[in-house]
Amino acid sequence: MGTPGDIGIVTPVQLRFDDVLTLTSGKTLSGFELTMESYGVLNEDRSNAVLVCHALSGNHHAAGRHSPADRKAGWWDLHIGPGKAIDTDRFHVVCINNIGGCDGSSGPNTSNPETGEVWGPEFPQVAVEDWVHTQVLLADRLGIDIWAAVVGGSLGGMQALYWATQYPDRVRNCVAMAAAPWLTAQNIAFNEIARQAILADPDWLSGQYQRQSATPTRGLSLARMVGHLTYMSADGMSDRFGRDVRDRPLDAADDQETVFQVESYLRYQGQQFSTRFDANTYLLMTRALDRFDITAGFGGSLKAAMAATRSRMLIVSFSSDWRFSPARSRELVDALLAADRPVTYAEIQTDAGHDAFLLDEPGYTDLFQAWMARVAI
Amino acid sequence: MGTPGDIGIVTPVQLRFDDVLTLTSGKTLSGFELTMESYGVLNEDRSNAVLVCHALSGNHHAAGRHSPADRKAGWWDLHIGPGKAIDTDRFHVVCINNIGGCDGSSGPNTSNPETGEVWGPEFPQVAVEDWVHTQVLLADRLGIDIWAAVVGGSLGGMQALYWATQYPDRVRNCVAMAAAPWLTAQNIAFNEIARQAILADPDWLSGQYQRQSATPTRGLSLARMVGHLTYMSADGMSDRFGRDVRDRPLDAADDQETVFQVESYLRYQGQQFSTRFDANTYLLMTRALDRFDITAGFGGSLKAAMAATRSRMLIVSFSSDWRFSPARSRELVDALLAADRPVTYAEIQTDAGHDAFLLDEPGYTDLFQAWMARVAI
Repeated sequence: MGTPGDIGIVTPVQLRFDDVLTLTSGKTLSGFELTMESYGVLNEDRSNAVLVCHALSGNHHAAGRHSPADRKAGWWDLHIGPGKAIDTDRFHVVCINNIGGCDGSSGPNTSNPETGEVWGPEFPQVAVEDWVHTQVLLADRLGIDIWAAVVGGSLGGMQALYWATQYPDRVRNCVAMAAAPWLTAQNIAFNEIARQAILADPDWLSGQYQRQSATPTRGLSLARMVGHLTYMSADGMSDRFGRDVRDRPLDAADDQETVFQVESYLRYQGQQFSTRFDANTYLLMTRALDRFDITAGFGGSLKAAMAATRSRMLIVSFSSDWRFSPARSRELVDALLAADRPVTYAEIQTDAGHDAFLLDEPGYTDLFQAWMARVAI
Repeated sequence: MGTPGDIGIVTPVQLRFDDVLTLTSGKTLSGFELTMESYGVLNEDRSNAVLVCHALSGNHHAAGRHSPADRKAGWWDLHIGPGKAIDTDRFHVVCINNIGGCDGSSGPNTSNPETGEVWGPEFPQVAVEDWVHTQVLLADRLGIDIWAAVVGGSLGGMQALYWATQYPDRVRNCVAMAAAPWLTAQNIAFNEIARQAILADPDWLSGQYQRQSATPTRGLSLARMVGHLTYMSADGMSDRFGRDVRDRPLDAADDQETVFQVESYLRYQGQQFSTRFDANTYLLMTRALDRFDITAGFGGSLKAAMAATRSRMLIVSFSSDWRFSPARSRELVDALLAADRPVTYAEIQTDAGHDAFLLDEPGYTDLFQAWMARVAI
């Protein structure tokens, strides 16, 4: 039953696609599987479907719990559910684990059907374009000609933008939060450091760690520490941790020991992540992020890209997000306005940094809810 | 001879101190050595001596060349020399490699006189306070009762600030650039990631790598990549690298290959650093940075700390420095003003980030030169 606002127990489903998928790289997959969750009822017109796209470390489990004992709900449970911004009393919400992921869809930790062995590092590099391509095939399978909305934050927002520019007739509303039209050199540099951390792990084994029953946990943990640090704001970290120290004496040769609370916090985040995520997927996803450029099919013109959209657009940024700063969202907004496209823009004031899109920040939840309430179904 | 403005060939000297040095940690060194360079002539009154303090990766070699074939001059050669800001026609400039360093002074890569073996990770953790303490002993040795100026950037600026607050009668002028009164949680987090990168290297060998003829080059390289990234600004990186790609095709399982110029740049920086720096020193220096707090001896009051100074003060920040942002310098300036102390403050407009203090930025060099010209000798 669950309390009001809770979506309750949800169950993922596995979908098999036998289409030969030609990837942006030129390589092909002879078929692929998608792990999907959906919440709320698809209406008769199939006009109330909302696609939620996940970010770097996300998956298909966007809301609800898999069992009553689940400690944590899906990653966007704050905003998906009855009476929430993405209101499951109105919408049929669909979320998949993208290919190349590590939570059930075809990816490095699944088997290559041609060899019967785990793909590992041989799983082909995929791009945002490829993810949207598989989402189009999914929409076709589900009989959804047009999404009421395609919604995402960060890398998920990039997928939503790609839908809006490349499949304008299939997206009535588009929401891109904490996103950017492409990555900066600094963004790429952080991803590169994360990748190098994985590649430097002796248990990386050229990516064949699964076949050798190893896991590059230290490298993956370090990669996550780098990423996680960039998701928080300097002010937010100061408020949360300050210079609080752990209760231990200053000593000499104990660099293995943490001194400050922020250190043990980051290590914990890294360690937790390394037990649930796949290193090959992390490499692949960051590469996809680095290579994304919404203007690629539009001669490098952001205005031309935005002019191709036909959706009602919501662009949201977060004041303390320095990974994809408000300035990057404003580039999108300026291009939409220059192209005479309808857009709502909000910069939410918060210390929560990039991760704010996952949270319930003052002003944000209300805005998101009000905007989604005006999505016609 | 050298061209005008060049300091020419310089030679480091080695100084032995037999004083028992009690460190902040409570541990002792039965004696220590300092590697020092000096430029310009000490006047009869010994009133023209300037102490230059180095930052995380610096050393005693601040200006000039060790041989005519040297490709690079000392790390602050742009600002130390005849007719430069720290004018060697006027000043006698002293710069040492701090203890715990890896360029000649007592540190992890030197021998423990009690065992005859390389110190490695057993070299005791030192603090900014300890460095300044050894610099005081050095001044005593050189017969310098009062420095005309103590000058430094970043961690070097923190030493200059510590001199001004703890030895006010021995510093007539104090210059702290791109510095901060203490590190933020975000600063500490970046240092922690760098340390974890070293500790995760299988060649780290619990810090005993030298005894086993190994070098944790990958870990140290990664640590430097993290550091170097935080020394550059996002805009500066965009201007310099943008999204320029290396000339190679998009391919699948080639994550070992760099795609973007910024990636190969960072890797190169990391690799170069790992051939010249010592991993134990890197751990020790970042720990010293993390633990620094200029208010420690003043009941946590920055105003009280600044009120203890008697020097003419120059505080300089750099607009795009997000490691020690202008806001951190303004904390120092506000406290100096609140304590009714004389201070000159400038925020230099630049895209060069934290490293700008090492460069010849418009407005910066002139200001530095003009301010130092007014240092009485």
